[in-house]
Amino acid sequence: MPVITFLPSYRKITVESGTTILDAARLAGFQMNVVCGGQGKCGKCIVFVKAGEVSFDREKFGRFFTGEELEAGGCLGCQAAVLGDLQVLIPESSLIQEQKILIESLGLETAFSPSVWKYALELQPPTLDDPSPDLTRLLWGIEKKGGPVVEKIYAPLEVLHLIPRVLRESGWRVTGTVALVPGGYRLINVEKGDTTAQLYGAAVDLGTTTIVVYVRSLVDGKVVGVASNYNRQITCGEDILSRVNYARKGGLPKLQALAAESINIALKSAANTAGIDLDDVYEVVVSGNTIMTHILMGMDPAYMIEEPYVPVVRRYLTASAQRLGITVNGNAGLFIFPAVSDFIGGDIVADILACGMSEGEDVSLMIDIGTNFEVVLGNRDWMFACAGAAGPALEGGEVLFGMRANPGAIERITLDMETLKPHYETINQVKPRGICGSGLIDLLAELLRACVIDRTGRINTNIPDDRVRMGAHHPEFVVAWKEETGIGKDIVITENDIKSLIMSKASILAACILLMKEAGIEREAVKKIYFSGAFGNYINKENAILVGLVPEVPVEQIRNIGNGAVEGANIALINRKMRKRLDEIAKTVAYIELNAEPAFMDEYTRASFLPHTDLSLFPGVQRILDSCRVRRG
Amino acid sequence: MPVITFLPSYRKITVESGTTILDAARLAGFQMNVVCGGQGKCGKCIVFVKAGEVSFDREKFGRFFTGEELEAGGCLGCQAAVLGDLQVLIPESSLIQEQKILIESLGLETAFSPSVWKYALELQPPTLDDPSPDLTRLLWGIEKKGGPVVEKIYAPLEVLHLIPRVLRESGWRVTGTVALVPGGYRLINVEKGDTTAQLYGAAVDLGTTTIVVYVRSLVDGKVVGVASNYNRQITCGEDILSRVNYARKGGLPKLQALAAESINIALKSAANTAGIDLDDVYEVVVSGNTIMTHILMGMDPAYMIEEPYVPVVRRYLTASAQRLGITVNGNAGLFIFPAVSDFIGGDIVADILACGMSEGEDVSLMIDIGTNFEVVLGNRDWMFACAGAAGPALEGGEVLFGMRANPGAIERITLDMETLKPHYETINQVKPRGICGSGLIDLLAELLRACVIDRTGRINTNIPDDRVRMGAHHPEFVVAWKEETGIGKDIVITENDIKSLIMSKASILAACILLMKEAGIEREAVKKIYFSGAFGNYINKENAILVGLVPEVPVEQIRNIGNGAVEGANIALINRKMRKRLDEIAKTVAYIELNAEPAFMDEYTRASFLPHTDLSLFPGVQRILDSCRVRRG
Repeated sequence: MPVITFLPSYRKITVESGTTILDAARLAGFQMNVVCGGQGKCGKCIVFVKAGEVSFDREKFGRFFTGEELEAGGCLGCQAAVLGDLQVLIPESSLIQEQKILIESLGLETAFSPSVWKYALELQPPTLDDPSPDLTRLLWGIEKKGGPVVEKIYAPLEVLHLIPRVLRESGWRVTGTVALVPGGYRLINVEKGDTTAQLYGAAVDLGTTTIVVYVRSLVDGKVVGVASNYNRQITCGEDILSRVNYARKGGLPKLQALAAESINIALKSAANTAGIDLDDVYEVVVSGNTIMTHILMGMDPAYMIEEPYVPVVRRYLTASAQRLGITVNGNAGLFIFPAVSDFIGGDIVADILACGMSEGEDVSLMIDIGTNFEVVLGNRDWMFACAGAAGPALEGGEVLFGMRANPGAIERITLDMETLKPHYETINQVKPRGICGSGLIDLLAELLRACVIDRTGRINTNIPDDRVRMGAHHPEFVVAWKEETGIGKDIVITENDIKSLIMSKASILAACILLMKEAGIEREAVKKIYFSGAFGNYINKENAILVGLVPEVPVEQIRNIGNGAVEGANIALINRKMRKRLDEIAKTVAYIELNAEPAFMDEYTRASFLPHTDLSLFPGVQRILDSCRVRRG
Repeated sequence: MPVITFLPSYRKITVESGTTILDAARLAGFQMNVVCGGQGKCGKCIVFVKAGEVSFDREKFGRFFTGEELEAGGCLGCQAAVLGDLQVLIPESSLIQEQKILIESLGLETAFSPSVWKYALELQPPTLDDPSPDLTRLLWGIEKKGGPVVEKIYAPLEVLHLIPRVLRESGWRVTGTVALVPGGYRLINVEKGDTTAQLYGAAVDLGTTTIVVYVRSLVDGKVVGVASNYNRQITCGEDILSRVNYARKGGLPKLQALAAESINIALKSAANTAGIDLDDVYEVVVSGNTIMTHILMGMDPAYMIEEPYVPVVRRYLTASAQRLGITVNGNAGLFIFPAVSDFIGGDIVADILACGMSEGEDVSLMIDIGTNFEVVLGNRDWMFACAGAAGPALEGGEVLFGMRANPGAIERITLDMETLKPHYETINQVKPRGICGSGLIDLLAELLRACVIDRTGRINTNIPDDRVRMGAHHPEFVVAWKEETGIGKDIVITENDIKSLIMSKASILAACILLMKEAGIEREAVKKIYFSGAFGNYINKENAILVGLVPEVPVEQIRNIGNGAVEGANIALINRKMRKRLDEIAKTVAYIELNAEPAFMDEYTRASFLPHTDLSLFPGVQRILDSCRVRRG
C-alpha cells in the first residue's frame, strides 16, 4: 500500500490506493481545515504534492490556486486521491490553529445544592446475630448518616460487584457515593476508607468549535480546574451543517466519538491542572446546541436541518457518561440541557440561566453570537427567541483579511480622526496577520466616525489619503502597511468586506427588533442587554451600538456574561434546584422562526445601514454621527 | 502444543502442556461429571489414556480404580496433566447425561396484569406548525392510547437512536413498547407497523442443576413455549459449594457466563418451539437460590458459605438482560426474585408464591427437595423457614445402585407382601440400571410394610428368601436379578443404603417438626403439605408419610406443586401486583438456622427411625405397621 510522508514533519502513514490526502492526513493525526466537510467547495485544505502521483482535477478546482501554487503541486486535500507513494506538504494555513478561548467565569452566585453526595461510614461487621446483606448494611449506614432512606436507593450491577470486597478489605470503613436520579437515588460507588473529599463534577460547554470544561468540587462547589479544547469534529466539517451532512453519510458514530474524545481531552487537562483523578468525577453536566447534544447522544440530527425541522428530543436527558465514552467515573451520570427548538439549544437555555433573565421582572435581551446567533427577549413570565445565520463575516470569514481570534489578529482598533492612522492591538502582541470580529466592529465604527464610509458602508474614495484607495476590484482602506504586518502584505478592508459585515450585523439587529415588536415593547423597556460568547466578550460596547449591531440602550446596561453556556452548565452542576428550572425555562421560551416571518426581511432591509435607516431608534448614535460630520465637514 | 484426541468421537483439541485432561475435555465441549469441582475428591471424572503420556499420581488416587481400570490407563481427568499428544477415552459414566426434568405447570390462576405493554400508533407527521420532537410525538401518541403520561416515560439511549428512522420509514405508523420500572416507565422499543401481537416474557427457574424456561405471551398471558436445559456450570462443579469454590478461584466471570448461556439455550429452544423471535421477549423473571442469583448477577457468593453467612443483596434486583448476557430484546429488563437469606433463596420465595401459602389463613408446610431441602411453615401472617443438606441419598447418591432420574431408573416399586417379588416401573420403560429417589422411598416403605426391615432400617436376614442375603459388607435386598437389568449385575439395596436414606429423610422430618415447635402448632393445625421440585412430584405420598419423610397429615392434604420456582416466576411475570408482594413475603419469613438450634440434633435423632421414635405423631402409620406385623407374624 502507498506510503504518504507528510512535510515538513516527515510523519508517515500507509493508506490504501484511492484514499484522499485529507483522509490520510486525518489518519496521521493532522487537524486540517475543512469548512465544507470535504466537498471541494471551500478551498481551505490546500496541500502541495512534492513527490509522487495523485488523481486530482486541476481544471475543475483551478479557481482555488494561483499559477505558482499549481506548479508547486497544489491540490485540494479532499479531492486528491493517492495513487502511489507520496511526499505531501501541508502548509500551516491548511491546519487548524490554536484559538483564543473564553473560559472566564461570570462569578454568578448560586445556592450550593449538588446532586451527588459521599458518606463516610464505619459499619459494624456482620455476625451470626446480624447477618444482614452487605447492601442493606451499607444503605443503613448511609441513611443513619442523613442520606436517603434505604428503600429509595438503587444499586447498579457495577457497584453490587464491588461491595463485598470493598467492605471486607476496608475493615468495614467505606465511603458510599449516592446520586439523585429520576425516581430515586442511585448508589454509584463504594470505596475503601474516607474519600469524602474526593468528590467532583464537571460542567461542559460542547460548542461546535470549542469545548470548555470546568471541574468543581461537589463538597464546596469551588472550581478546581478549567480547560478547553477544540471540538475534534472540526476535521469532519467546520460548520454545523457540514457536520450534519457528515452524519448523514454514516459518520454519526465517528462524530459521536470525536465529541466524547474532545470532552475527554479537556477533562483530562482540567483534572491534571487540579491534580485530581477523573475517577472522582461523579457527574457531568453538558450544555450545547441541539445538534451537538444530539450528536453526543448518538441521536440522528438529520431531520433538524430540513423542513419541518424536527429534533429527536427537546427535553433534558440523562445518560451514563461511560456509555457515551466520557472517561469519568464509570457510574457517573451525564445530564444534558433541554432545548427550546432545533435552533435554540441547551447552550441558549444555559445562557438564559447564566444571565438570570428568567428569574426577574425586568425585560432583558440576550444575544449569543458564535457560529450562528441567537437572541432571547423576555423575563420570568415570558420569553421570545429566534436564531439565524449571521454569516461568517463577524468571525472573520468572507472578509479578505478577516481571521479567527488567533495570534496576530487585530482585536481592537481606533483611528486618528485627523490622520486616519490606525492604532491597533493584536492577540499575543505579534505583528498583525488579519482582523478578527471585535477588530472589524471597531474598524467599522471608526471608519463611520471618521466619515471614511457612509451609513450604507460605501467608502468615500475622494478622501485624499494613501490609506483610502482603489483595490483590485473594490475601494479599500489600508489598516496596516505590509512592512508592519506578519504576512508581508498590506492588510486592508474592502468595501465588499464592509457590505458583508453590514449584512451580518443587520441580521442580528433585525432579529432583536422583530422580537421587541413581537413582544410589543419599545427599546426603553429593555433594561439589560447581555452578550454571551467569545465575540460578545471582546467587543467594544459603544461601537456595537454605533454600527447598529444591537438596539441602542445606555451602554452601562450592556453586560458580557462571558461563556454563558458553560456558566449555565456550572450553575446546573452545583444547584439541583436550578436544574429543575431548566425544563420550565425551555417551555417558557416561544421560538420565532425568522424564515417564516415575512416581517423579518423588512426589518433586515431597514437594519442594513449603519446603524439603521431609522435613526430615531438610535438617538445617541445620531448625535455622535452629527458631530463627526460637522467635524470633518 | 500437544493434540488430544478424545475417543470414541475422535474429537480433537490442541492444548498447552500441563493442562489437565478435564480442562482439555471442557475446551473440546464435553460436559464431564465434576462433583468436587476438580479437587480429586469425588472420582467421577475417570478417563482412560489410550496412547501418550500424562502426569498422574496413580498411588494417591488409586482408591478410585480397580486394577483392571488402572491397567487400561485409568486416570482422574482433573488430576492428569497432559505431557504430549494423547488419545483419551471418556467413558459415558463420566459424562453428564440428560435427565428427566419437571416442566409441568401447576395451572395456578393469577390475575393477568403484566409490566410491559405495546401501543400501535398512527402519528401525524410533523409540520412547520407542529414541529414537536420525535420523542414527544411518540409519547403523546402512547398517552392518548391510554398509556402512561408523557412526563413519566423515560427513553434510554438505544431507543432514542432508533426513533427518528423508525418513525419516518414506517410512515409514522409504529408500535411503542413501554415497561414499568422503579420510579416510572421506560420506552424500551419502537418498531415499524403494528407489532402488538409480538410481545413476550420469559419466566426462568435458574436451578443449580437445571434451568427451566417458560415463554409467555404478554398480550394474553398464555404459555407459548417451554424448555429446559442443564445448568452448564455443572462442568465447574456439581454441587453448589463446588461452584462457590470455583468462583473463589477467579471463576466467577465464567460461572456467570455459563449461567447466562444455559438460560439462553433454553430460551432459544422455547422460542424455536413457539416460532417466535427472542427479540420480542421484553422481560425476563428469574427465580433461583441465593447463590445462583448472585452468580447470574456477577456478585461474589463467597461470603455466603462461611460464617456469618452474608449475601451481597437479599431484596429483589432488576438489571438489563443484555448486560447479563441474556439474548432477548436488547432493552429487556430482568427481574430477580428476592431472597430470605443465603439458604432460603428466590426459588423458595417463588415456591411460597406458587403454592399460595402466603395469601390465606390456613397454616401450610411447603417442602422443596432438590440438591438441598428447604421447609417453610406458616400463612399470610407469619412464616418460618429453614434449610439443610438432606445428603445425596434421596437423589440416588451414596446409595450403591442409586441414580438420578435418568432413563433406566426404577421410579416406582411395590413388593408382593407374600413372595417379596418386586413390581417396578423404570423411566422410559427400559431395563433397570438403578433406583432413583421416588423408587427408593417406595422401596423403603415396602420393605418396612413387608417387615424385611425394622423401624431402625435393619434388614431381617432371617427371612428365608433369595432376595434377602448377605452382601460383600452389609445385608442387602435384591431388587432385580442381573438377567433382568440393563447393567448385567444384580440391583440391590443394602442396609448401609437404607441407613443413608433414613439419615436424609430424618433431616427433613426433623426440620418440619422443629418449625412446628417454633411456631407452637401441632400436626393437626397443618392444613396442607406442599411438595415442590421434581422429587416431590414423583413421590408416592402414602409412602412419604409411612417412612416419615414428612409429618403425618391426611394424604389428600398433600399436594405437589411441581416446579414451584418456575411457577412462581411465571406468576411474577404476568402479575405485577404479585411481584410487588415478593419483598413483603421475603420479609415475613423468619429464617431459622438449623446449625444454631441445639434442638435440631434432638429432633434429628428422634426422626432417624421409620417413621419416627414417637409413633403417636404417626397414628395412621402405626395402624398400618401393626397390621403388617400381625400379617407377617
